[in-house]
Amino acid sequence: MKLLIDNLQYANWSEPIFQQMNEGGVHAVHVTIAYHESFREMVLNLEAFNRWFERLPHLIFKGTTAADVLKAQKEGRTAIFFGFQNPSPIEDDIGLVEICHQLGIRFMQLTYNNQSLLATGCYEDDDTGLTRMGKQVVHEMNRVGMVVDMSHSADRSTLEAIDHSTRPIAITHANPHWWQAALRNKKHEVLKALTDAGGMLGFSVYPHHLKDGTHCTLDSFCQMVAEAADRYGAQNLGIGTDLCQDQPDSIVEWMRVGRWSKTIDYGEGSASDAGFPPMPNWFQDNRDFGNIRAGLLTAGLSDGQVDGIMGENWHRFYQTSFEPA
Amino acid sequence: MKLLIDNLQYANWSEPIFQQMNEGGVHAVHVTIAYHESFREMVLNLEAFNRWFERLPHLIFKGTTAADVLKAQKEGRTAIFFGFQNPSPIEDDIGLVEICHQLGIRFMQLTYNNQSLLATGCYEDDDTGLTRMGKQVVHEMNRVGMVVDMSHSADRSTLEAIDHSTRPIAITHANPHWWQAALRNKKHEVLKALTDAGGMLGFSVYPHHLKDGTHCTLDSFCQMVAEAADRYGAQNLGIGTDLCQDQPDSIVEWMRVGRWSKTIDYGEGSASDAGFPPMPNWFQDNRDFGNIRAGLLTAGLSDGQVDGIMGENWHRFYQTSFEPA
Repeated sequence: MKLLIDNLQYANWSEPIFQQMNEGGVHAVHVTIAYHESFREMVLNLEAFNRWFERLPHLIFKGTTAADVLKAQKEGRTAIFFGFQNPSPIEDDIGLVEICHQLGIRFMQLTYNNQSLLATGCYEDDDTGLTRMGKQVVHEMNRVGMVVDMSHSADRSTLEAIDHSTRPIAITHANPHWWQAALRNKKHEVLKALTDAGGMLGFSVYPHHLKDGTHCTLDSFCQMVAEAADRYGAQNLGIGTDLCQDQPDSIVEWMRVGRWSKTIDYGEGSASDAGFPPMPNWFQDNRDFGNIRAGLLTAGLSDGQVDGIMGENWHRFYQTSFEPA
Repeated sequence: MKLLIDNLQYANWSEPIFQQMNEGGVHAVHVTIAYHESFREMVLNLEAFNRWFERLPHLIFKGTTAADVLKAQKEGRTAIFFGFQNPSPIEDDIGLVEICHQLGIRFMQLTYNNQSLLATGCYEDDDTGLTRMGKQVVHEMNRVGMVVDMSHSADRSTLEAIDHSTRPIAITHANPHWWQAALRNKKHEVLKALTDAGGMLGFSVYPHHLKDGTHCTLDSFCQMVAEAADRYGAQNLGIGTDLCQDQPDSIVEWMRVGRWSKTIDYGEGSASDAGFPPMPNWFQDNRDFGNIRAGLLTAGLSDGQVDGIMGENWHRFYQTSFEPA
């Protein structure tokens, strides 16, 4: 039976949202559990999710293995996998990589827009690639089974992560730069190197990553996916919507500046368009994945390719990524 | 085949000590991973053990389930289970109980000698029993599968923990007060209530808990165990040596005062006898459990009773204690 995986969401979690996952038949969601948090702050976020798991076991449970996706499918629930968009929770302590893996973290971005202790973010002027600690941490992530995610990283850093990692890495939520020339979207050479090494690209539906933003058509999005399948192989593609459902605009401001700046940085937005942009009409929430599936078929992808992109490819990637090397 | 479990050690860990566990055929050891540490400091201790597990997989591995004891026996290794002697690592945050369980913690003392946020320690003048938070935390420990350990707690607190807990609790390392009237040893009524409720007592070999201290004879120790078997049922008894091998005396001072006092408190010691007391000649390290086994048989306990006390009883207790309720 067909699997459905969304490999990136950061909603303002609520029972109605988990209910929508259930109605939409979403078997697994990779949830961002930290943006700028310290280790202890991230643990508070895990505790909050433990309360959700305790309260709503009929809807969701904590996912840590690929088998949990099949379990979710069988039981009509959604497996929630955790990841960091920033390495801030491991602080300056490589031992926290394994500790975080033991707590269920399965993805970690090496940077979130800015320079981190590990690599360079996509908003920095100069990209110096993986740092000394970055190389050590990639090695440790490979060892314990935590996926390197370079969604918000700069090009050289991303290429070096692909090269340095002994296991395939991921760009969980971004689109090709050749379709929409956003700073956060990825250049062809980066996507080629990523997928040639067995890595995965998750397509984002966040309007700042879309051609024509909120007004992007489903047809345009799906034609882009079809073109990416031609260039990179459909088996290396999946979905990572970057859905930030029900979040107040204060959250996107916090995503952008955390505690690192005293003045606002608008990131992908602008002073006149500072908040969350409205999502396209064909993807409002977890009940709308059927639109994407139908659109991909219309765009000429085969049934097998579409099944892969909608979930089976991430599931196969999970199978080889989450266990110790 | 016979199981061998020591349900409390806090050694100055080294490869030779783990090698001695191997030579002694010790299948599982409950290791103290925190005395006075905050959550973050305790995680650093877990990280240090992760390095031991990575370096010495032929000798030790992290134990989290009763099945790991059998795995250790089968593979000729030792499963290391973790516990806290103090609830300091959960700070004032009940959500950390589940987080710590996810990190592999399987025992937690509600107090270490002093009043804690949860209960009263055995060195306080007044014992007010379980606190408001203490009752909530016992309930949460019952839910997630973390054993309440009252080794260093005062009588009323211990009796209330036995009563309040819906699962059997443990006194991992202490002896009967009727054998040696040490403050840390447990009164008959406490041991009766503990074992009547299915709880476990682990006999300590720490000299301050022994009749005649370092000079305690194996015969006296084993006669005491035999008497305890008569009083409480052999099936509720095990070993928890409290072995603090190779520790410098600065450690026992730290155990006693942590950061809570500016002046030294000698605890079970005295100004003239401030350091670690020498262990009795019949129990120096992990290779000496055979002496205890032989002594228990000489004291008249049956083969089955001795097998239980040396490991099977703790193993059975692990089977019903470490999983979520």
